[in-house]
Amino acid sequence: MAPPNVIVTRRLHFNAAHRVHNPAMSDEENRRTFGKCNNPNWHGHNYILDVSVRGVVDERTGYVIDLSRVKQIVEERVVSKVDHRNLNLEVDFMHGVIPTTENVVVAFWRELEPALKPAQLTRLVLWETVNNYVEYDGR
Amino acid sequence: MAPPNVIVTRRLHFNAAHRVHNPAMSDEENRRTFGKCNNPNWHGHNYILDVSVRGVVDERTGYVIDLSRVKQIVEERVVSKVDHRNLNLEVDFMHGVIPTTENVVVAFWRELEPALKPAQLTRLVLWETVNNYVEYDGR
Amino acid sequence: MAPPNVIVTRRLHFNAAHRVHNPAMSDEENRRTFGKCNNPNWHGHNYILDVSVRGVVDERTGYVIDLSRVKQIVEERVVSKVDHRNLNLEVDFMHGVIPTTENVVVAFWRELEPALKPAQLTRLVLWETVNNYVEYDGR
Amino acid sequence: MAPPNVIVTRRLHFNAAHRVHNPAMSDEENRRTFGKCNNPNWHGHNYILDVSVRGVVDERTGYVIDLSRVKQIVEERVVSKVDHRNLNLEVDFMHGVIPTTENVVVAFWRELEPALKPAQLTRLVLWETVNNYVEYDGR
Amino acid sequence: MAPPNVIVTRRLHFNAAHRVHNPAMSDEENRRTFGKCNNPNWHGHNYILDVSVRGVVDERTGYVIDLSRVKQIVEERVVSKVDHRNLNLEVDFMHGVIPTTENVVVAFWRELEPALKPAQLTRLVLWETVNNYVEYDGR
Amino acid sequence: MAPPNVIVTRRLHFNAAHRVHNPAMSDEENRRTFGKCNNPNWHGHNYILDVSVRGVVDERTGYVIDLSRVKQIVEERVVSKVDHRNLNLEVDFMHGVIPTTENVVVAFWRELEPALKPAQLTRLVLWETVNNYVEYDGR
Repeated sequence: MAPPNVIVTRRLHFNAAHRVHNPAMSDEENRRTFGKCNNPNWHGHNYILDVSVRGVVDERTGYVIDLSRVKQIVEERVVSKVDHRNLNLEVDFMHGVIPTTENVVVAFWRELEPALKPAQLTRLVLWETVNNYVEYDGR
Repeated sequence: MAPPNVIVTRRLHFNAAHRVHNPAMSDEENRRTFGKCNNPNWHGHNYILDVSVRGVVDERTGYVIDLSRVKQIVEERVVSKVDHRNLNLEVDFMHGVIPTTENVVVAFWRELEPALKPAQLTRLVLWETVNNYVEYDGR
Repeated sequence: MAPPNVIVTRRLHFNAAHRVHNPAMSDEENRRTFGKCNNPNWHGHNYILDVSVRGVVDERTGYVIDLSRVKQIVEERVVSKVDHRNLNLEVDFMHGVIPTTENVVVAFWRELEPALKPAQLTRLVLWETVNNYVEYDGR
Repeated sequence: MAPPNVIVTRRLHFNAAHRVHNPAMSDEENRRTFGKCNNPNWHGHNYILDVSVRGVVDERTGYVIDLSRVKQIVEERVVSKVDHRNLNLEVDFMHGVIPTTENVVVAFWRELEPALKPAQLTRLVLWETVNNYVEYDGR
Repeated sequence: MAPPNVIVTRRLHFNAAHRVHNPAMSDEENRRTFGKCNNPNWHGHNYILDVSVRGVVDERTGYVIDLSRVKQIVEERVVSKVDHRNLNLEVDFMHGVIPTTENVVVAFWRELEPALKPAQLTRLVLWETVNNYVEYDGR
Repeated sequence: MAPPNVIVTRRLHFNAAHRVHNPAMSDEENRRTFGKCNNPNWHGHNYILDVSVRGVVDERTGYVIDLSRVKQIVEERVVSKVDHRNLNLEVDFMHGVIPTTENVVVAFWRELEPALKPAQLTRLVLWETVNNYVEYDGR
């Protein structure tokens, strides 16, 4: 029997300010497109990030991957750079990106997927509020 | 690189009464099959509905779809018709349907899938209580 | 040193249908006063009930009261009578009571306070939805 | 028997940006005192606000107060002014106030307590993150 | 039109003690590999288990499967054997297994998949803490 | 106007094993009194601890107390000693104490109340499972 293939997930939290704004649009078009999320003086969220790795269970450890290592990598590569920060102004890997939840999750994937190797990142889920979240699997 | 393909989800809430009952069965068979969910004087739930749309991220907006538009469509087509209502008696698109969570989620799909086009509804999750929920992807 | 005085709480769940309606008002006044909660065909909720008992910690058991006994009493006196029921039609201790959350919590207190003696019921909290709840302490 | 006295609560949500900063301190002292919460480019939160009113249950309605009226007043006086806003820059009733959770809850009380009269505001609870919250009762 | 194919899920809870320890490793290697989870005097968790069955909706009942039957089978085969137990010492179907969340979820699958037949178990999700969970689909 | 008096709360988590057992009782009496919580091979929980401090808001900082200091004190005095530990065997300040939730919360109070001075600890809430919790205010 092949060793079982399991998905393991670590949840992390961070708080950040942002403004949904496309500098290529006029102010009026930005307001019409993004509504109150375009507020020029920013707003912010308590984000919840679920980082999922898929793999076979190691017989020696019973782990797919030590989740404290996942936590350490995600904190170093992503959370420490966005927590208590401004997503538009202060995050090196997000320059020029409109910080919608979709774009944030994709930017996180691009940071985390190589950093977690040889483990296989399989899914990111990012909650922006209690009522909306996005999922990305690298495709 | 192809533009990333992301799933975005909007959560909505509604409260409704229902009775799990098949008029083609005898009262005795209904009781045996559905237990306390068959109570003739109804019972009810706080339902939680997660509506997920999959698509590529629009470069101009950073959105797969504006979730406030998703919310508006789901409220108009579904939530306004079931919230504070009786699922057996008052919902036009559920006449003749036994209002189990399975049947409710499928009925919602049939209302929402065409209404959300050209966006692609990809999954509905419906929580009936804190301990049970159903998922449907249109298949 | 006096033995410490602690509040212990057991949470229980039930689902019920109801209609907020005062038979002493006209239909029009009921609609104006209670809005969609007055729907004649009922609606319903997943209620959450927190039952709190205050007392000194028994040195022999380390308990204020065995919470499995609290659970048993609350299920027998209240939950079994309201779960999967209609609060307007089917609950003996609520006849003639408009089943607002306020009136439900007071009715529960009157059932539970004597049944829990000699333990001292100190607070009931009743959640009707994720966004509203009531508290009662017997006053 | 005196009519029962019940506490009723309505929960509301808002998202905002802020910076914990005292302009009377040096930049260095601000950093030492407030740490990452002093980030000059702001950060933000999904706040949860529980507004509690205490009173006797009206026999005619079964309500202490219609919670939809509480919701309307709180949205008009507070939530519409802070949601998707910057608490340091954009909230008229918070000018000159360091927007710690403590100061925010007190500022909200001063807006809401008179607006809710003759109903008696009895408690505000404000969650800033999943791990910290404050309570205020007007004293 | 083919009858719709829906996933239905029942959530259950249990509490257990465990120690993440591989008897084939030295004490020193166990400590280095598993950290505080290797504590020789045990620690424990409130586990949350979501059991998902996929199938077509039965026209007569509106159910994929009666979830109270799922609950009964899962309690009999799994929950009654692990609740308030020691996962290393007391669970017949886990002898010789390092009780990581990965190994627990796979062991549960092997008990539940045959017991639920002819219903098709499609996914188990097991939360160990509020910040980590695993998923398994039998592969 | 007197400076406002606010309660601020920091939530912390820990996981532990325990056994509810009174060595002064016979094994038979222990089993009868404590049921499955008396399991000789231990069981365990994910505990949630809310630590509340009451005080006036400092005008200079806007804080009752810096919650990161509260977190640090609670981690040092309590959480680091109970997390991933056995409450019966490994906690210096709980020797000879039956580790019911009531006794744990009182033991925590006795550690934390002096350590937090001059701040005034006003309430501890300890959740043992999703369905039961205790509160203690030092009386």
